[in-house]
Amino acid sequence: MVRGLSVRKAMVGWVLAVMAITARADEGMWLLNQPPTEQWKQKYGFIPADGWLEHVQKSCVKFGRGGSASIVSPDGLVMTNHHVGFGQLRKLSTPDRNLLEAGFYAPTHAEELKCHDLALQVLWSIEDVTSRVTEAASKGMDAAAAHAARRKVISRIETECEKSTGLKGEVVTFYHGARYHLYRYKRYTDIRLVMAPEGGIAHFGGDTDNFEYPRFCLDVSFFRIYENDKPLAAEHYLRWSTSGTSDGDLTFIVGHPARTERLFTVDHLKFLHEVKFPTILRRLWRREVQLLGFAARSAEQARMANSELPRVQNSRKAYTGIIAGMHDPRLMRTKEAAERHLREAVEANPQYKADWSDAWDRVAAAQKTHREIYERASALEGRRSVIRSDLFDIARDLVRLTDELPKPNGNRLQEYQDAALDSLYLSLYSPAPIYDALEIDRLESGLAYLIETFGADDPLVRRAVGGQGPRRRAETIVRGTKLKSIEVRRALAESGAAAVRESSDPMIRFAAAIDTESRAMRKRLEDEVESVEREAYARIAAAQFAINGANTYPDATFSLRIAFGPIVGYREGDVAIPPFTKLSGVYERMALRGAAPPFDLPLRWIEKKDGLDLNTPFNFVSTADIIGGNSGSPVINRMGEVVGIVFDGNLQGLIWDIAYTDQQARAVSVDARAIIEALRKVYDATPLADELVGRQ
Amino acid sequence: MVRGLSVRKAMVGWVLAVMAITARADEGMWLLNQPPTEQWKQKYGFIPADGWLEHVQKSCVKFGRGGSASIVSPDGLVMTNHHVGFGQLRKLSTPDRNLLEAGFYAPTHAEELKCHDLALQVLWSIEDVTSRVTEAASKGMDAAAAHAARRKVISRIETECEKSTGLKGEVVTFYHGARYHLYRYKRYTDIRLVMAPEGGIAHFGGDTDNFEYPRFCLDVSFFRIYENDKPLAAEHYLRWSTSGTSDGDLTFIVGHPARTERLFTVDHLKFLHEVKFPTILRRLWRREVQLLGFAARSAEQARMANSELPRVQNSRKAYTGIIAGMHDPRLMRTKEAAERHLREAVEANPQYKADWSDAWDRVAAAQKTHREIYERASALEGRRSVIRSDLFDIARDLVRLTDELPKPNGNRLQEYQDAALDSLYLSLYSPAPIYDALEIDRLESGLAYLIETFGADDPLVRRAVGGQGPRRRAETIVRGTKLKSIEVRRALAESGAAAVRESSDPMIRFAAAIDTESRAMRKRLEDEVESVEREAYARIAAAQFAINGANTYPDATFSLRIAFGPIVGYREGDVAIPPFTKLSGVYERMALRGAAPPFDLPLRWIEKKDGLDLNTPFNFVSTADIIGGNSGSPVINRMGEVVGIVFDGNLQGLIWDIAYTDQQARAVSVDARAIIEALRKVYDATPLADELVGRQ
Repeated sequence: MVRGLSVRKAMVGWVLAVMAITARADEGMWLLNQPPTEQWKQKYGFIPADGWLEHVQKSCVKFGRGGSASIVSPDGLVMTNHHVGFGQLRKLSTPDRNLLEAGFYAPTHAEELKCHDLALQVLWSIEDVTSRVTEAASKGMDAAAAHAARRKVISRIETECEKSTGLKGEVVTFYHGARYHLYRYKRYTDIRLVMAPEGGIAHFGGDTDNFEYPRFCLDVSFFRIYENDKPLAAEHYLRWSTSGTSDGDLTFIVGHPARTERLFTVDHLKFLHEVKFPTILRRLWRREVQLLGFAARSAEQARMANSELPRVQNSRKAYTGIIAGMHDPRLMRTKEAAERHLREAVEANPQYKADWSDAWDRVAAAQKTHREIYERASALEGRRSVIRSDLFDIARDLVRLTDELPKPNGNRLQEYQDAALDSLYLSLYSPAPIYDALEIDRLESGLAYLIETFGADDPLVRRAVGGQGPRRRAETIVRGTKLKSIEVRRALAESGAAAVRESSDPMIRFAAAIDTESRAMRKRLEDEVESVEREAYARIAAAQFAINGANTYPDATFSLRIAFGPIVGYREGDVAIPPFTKLSGVYERMALRGAAPPFDLPLRWIEKKDGLDLNTPFNFVSTADIIGGNSGSPVINRMGEVVGIVFDGNLQGLIWDIAYTDQQARAVSVDARAIIEALRKVYDATPLADELVGRQ
Repeated sequence: MVRGLSVRKAMVGWVLAVMAITARADEGMWLLNQPPTEQWKQKYGFIPADGWLEHVQKSCVKFGRGGSASIVSPDGLVMTNHHVGFGQLRKLSTPDRNLLEAGFYAPTHAEELKCHDLALQVLWSIEDVTSRVTEAASKGMDAAAAHAARRKVISRIETECEKSTGLKGEVVTFYHGARYHLYRYKRYTDIRLVMAPEGGIAHFGGDTDNFEYPRFCLDVSFFRIYENDKPLAAEHYLRWSTSGTSDGDLTFIVGHPARTERLFTVDHLKFLHEVKFPTILRRLWRREVQLLGFAARSAEQARMANSELPRVQNSRKAYTGIIAGMHDPRLMRTKEAAERHLREAVEANPQYKADWSDAWDRVAAAQKTHREIYERASALEGRRSVIRSDLFDIARDLVRLTDELPKPNGNRLQEYQDAALDSLYLSLYSPAPIYDALEIDRLESGLAYLIETFGADDPLVRRAVGGQGPRRRAETIVRGTKLKSIEVRRALAESGAAAVRESSDPMIRFAAAIDTESRAMRKRLEDEVESVEREAYARIAAAQFAINGANTYPDATFSLRIAFGPIVGYREGDVAIPPFTKLSGVYERMALRGAAPPFDLPLRWIEKKDGLDLNTPFNFVSTADIIGGNSGSPVINRMGEVVGIVFDGNLQGLIWDIAYTDQQARAVSVDARAIIEALRKVYDATPLADELVGRQ
């Protein structure tokens, strides 16, 4: 019940926060080569020492496809969240060894478990390539052609980078296309699991406590980077703070916020509020109920469902929080006022007017198209697509890869361009287990969704269900496909488009049957929505620069950022929420909830309780500006030492996607002291604790 | 995983089943004054004795607004399902006495608990009033006017009935308006709770096992009818079978199936498949996830949520089953063939053609309109409306009641016509507890739904949210309303429309703010869809009669019906499912599922296990044709003795809504022997068991 109430109260902070993207308070996900030094100095008297930023940058890690992490020992030890390492823990589990439930610890290097398909990247250097990218598109081009031209040069820059430096190149877009930076990464693919606690303590309180505070979670896991079959001798790593932190201390969070939408126009926000978020929520509600039913049928199915359910519940709660924030009419009114203000300033200057005046209307037109195609395009393509199964993903990749590879690199779909192929092959040939029952359930669910949404007579739906009911169709395909064999995948990938076209594998045939329309929808989306938005937002961002000054940070783009803010509590109604919780709190909460799941502590935590210092700080909150993707980011102090690891935001922080406020919104972290206490006294992992604090 | 597979396999039976509504196999929900005597005689050699049907009819009970029951002792003892009595058990619960969890037994009459707002009805006599009703509408009238004219005369017939006989009159529509029967009911409002087992055994296996078989549920509860503060001296009641039943025995199920849709045209079925059912499911998925979150916050909230969650989960599973059946393209193809067949027969006869030929197109036109208005109309009105809160229902009833009462009876909305007022006042002045936290959650959910679905700028949505976020709006209204006081409700109801219009009560104001559009949508639905369908289906039904003979049963309309069929198992793939389960099975299933909820037996069942005859038959399946609303119906043998009580259908039976098949579809009942065994040996309820078997 606290949720909606608090979201509402958080609104008060908006009026100040969303007037412009220029930074106030502790707002901002700053580029490491463009830090808010003036603000740090004035508000906190903090002046980073020479090399402080570079050292931090080179100690931070981009974890897989969507998480953050950091190197925390000279031997390449990497710390991230349990929920970031989750996919790997699942893939390394077997029916006899459920790492998600039981946890894992390798006391020696030899016992560390090699991950099947994980790549970590460390940002090594940055180059501004804005002029090269923007000059690729000439004035007369339409948005789609300009985008294609830019994509082409970007792909060339990335390939050159790899050839000339051996580093993986990625051109990152900032300020919605106003700036392009070439990020050069050191890339590691031999990654081994060192330690993970039980899911029961990592996610104590489960979906109920997710996005809540106070919290009691040991949401951490450790991996190790190997090079040439030896632990990485790390040039840079973050040292562990031995002094800890207190209420009011300034902290920094360095990681990879995935995406914010703070520049979005009112029309765009209305699209999110009225079309996109409700559609996503509908899919999540549906899938959550289906998965709960699937899981309830047996312990084995519950284990399978666990590979999908937490992600679904996490997303559902996140979207619930943000949509609850948007439901308050005052948010949109505030955004409307800010937009009016900016547009008036543009109109008042003839040059500004000529360059930027129509950008908002262009976004509005794109939203109109997006409203029309969103349901169909998003059902077939992208992160929220409804046909989700590991085998389908493999089949689609095979169909597309063999189709795309013969094309010039710059003309391919982005995920099949040279720069992306390593990651693609890693996942395509991953030996991670695939569960038939869950695959059938997922595919049935997706097919039924298509019927429910587009009707049984829709031509695409007819092709998809092939004259059968979704259940029977899913069974036929999943039981008939040979794609569980990595050799079969490899043979198909290597034999090319003709072989794939002629393959009688039912999953390949299924993927091919819906691919034409699926690609067509994606093309419409890219050409008529995303390209238009990109072009328009680049101009709106340029207007922001011109009118509000250059002291701004770009919207998040899953690139490395530094955020800052003190450890500080907040109030909910009459209740003061202190910034720190203690280890004792987890036992109290378990007792209060009768130890019923998800409030049942792992046995080890019950047995070892007496040996623990229950006053050890466990979790804490700060005002640093984070968002999804930041999970696993180290929390560091002024000396650059690890004082914690961020793993969540509170419910009031969900609106940070759109607007920053520090009224009640907070980042939630695990305290470094709790990690050491648990390693030493619960997990008997003294060598690991010693490695962290530097006593080796 | 068994679910979808079995639904698919059940399809094979359809081809025969859905060609026409004429009865085959054990199909049919027959009127008690029009039983399938020829079929009974030929297939089962069963010829009911004189008075058999009248005795059964007068022993059966319509329970509240949506369930079935029977009188099972000379002292007015009534048996129904636990899940039918659920609402009453909830209302009789207090924070200190949770009847749903702990169960209840009153060893003496004095200890029986009086229900707040329950009415039971026994069908006493039937009169065919078809000509009076149909003559009310003259040829020239359009569908809406004809409907209004018929409603008017129906209301007059019902009022007359009450005046002349003292019995409650209800004109029941059969064959979609081809026949109207006046049902005269004895009505009882002093009903007391006698016995209910714990929810844990009544719904053992919870939502996981719901609609599944084999099953192990004691889904039964007992009430008693009082007249003049004394137990009813029942003229008719069903005797308890002491001999029990075996595999293959013919049984009858007599109760109130609520609604079937077996005559529906293909266009209409497509509307259900593509619009109505997916919309309902979307609302149910959403609400289920919301309620699970609400319940997870505390034990107290879990108890509150229990008043809504089981209903939501039950509906969700039912719609999941039926939509899964409809997803198989073969169902629609079979229906298409049957429709073509019938239409060709109509076209072939000039008189038929003149009378009935356009009926299918009229239904199609109504579906077109319904597709356009369904989302909005159903969000605001009817069983699936999204603004669901006890306080809102009260407020809306007050707004409408005071508005409608001054009108002539026949012109009022149906629920405010004289014949409905007793029930209305019973619920309007019910002292049943209302939980603020749940009311706020429900109202917030409904308001958010309106925004998500119609957009924040929609005029109705603006009126509904009143410039606030849904959460704050819901809090303001629920905390501010005085409608928890029965006196306040009564004062408003009695002071009339002007007083209600001027009331500043926030819930009244809220209900009034959305009422104009809500009523307008309802009117469109009634005039442009329901009236058109009614008129067209009456003609399609007439065509059915003419072409397929009069030996048909009408679609269910929550009126008393008799269904029949033997106790017989079925196969799922290679597995033979025997018809009976035993008491031992519940202990085995608990052990298999590690006694985790919902597979945790109540303590009493653990403690008393050793004293039980574990070979006692517990649940059984039969082919009798039932549907929702039949819950609580007695299962009787050829002698009219109780051998069980039906409480569910299996998943494959969900499609019975649209088409009967006996391939795998089954009705699921509690065996009478298990009831006696449990009463005597688990609940120490010897007096109640004795009352049932007749040893008093």
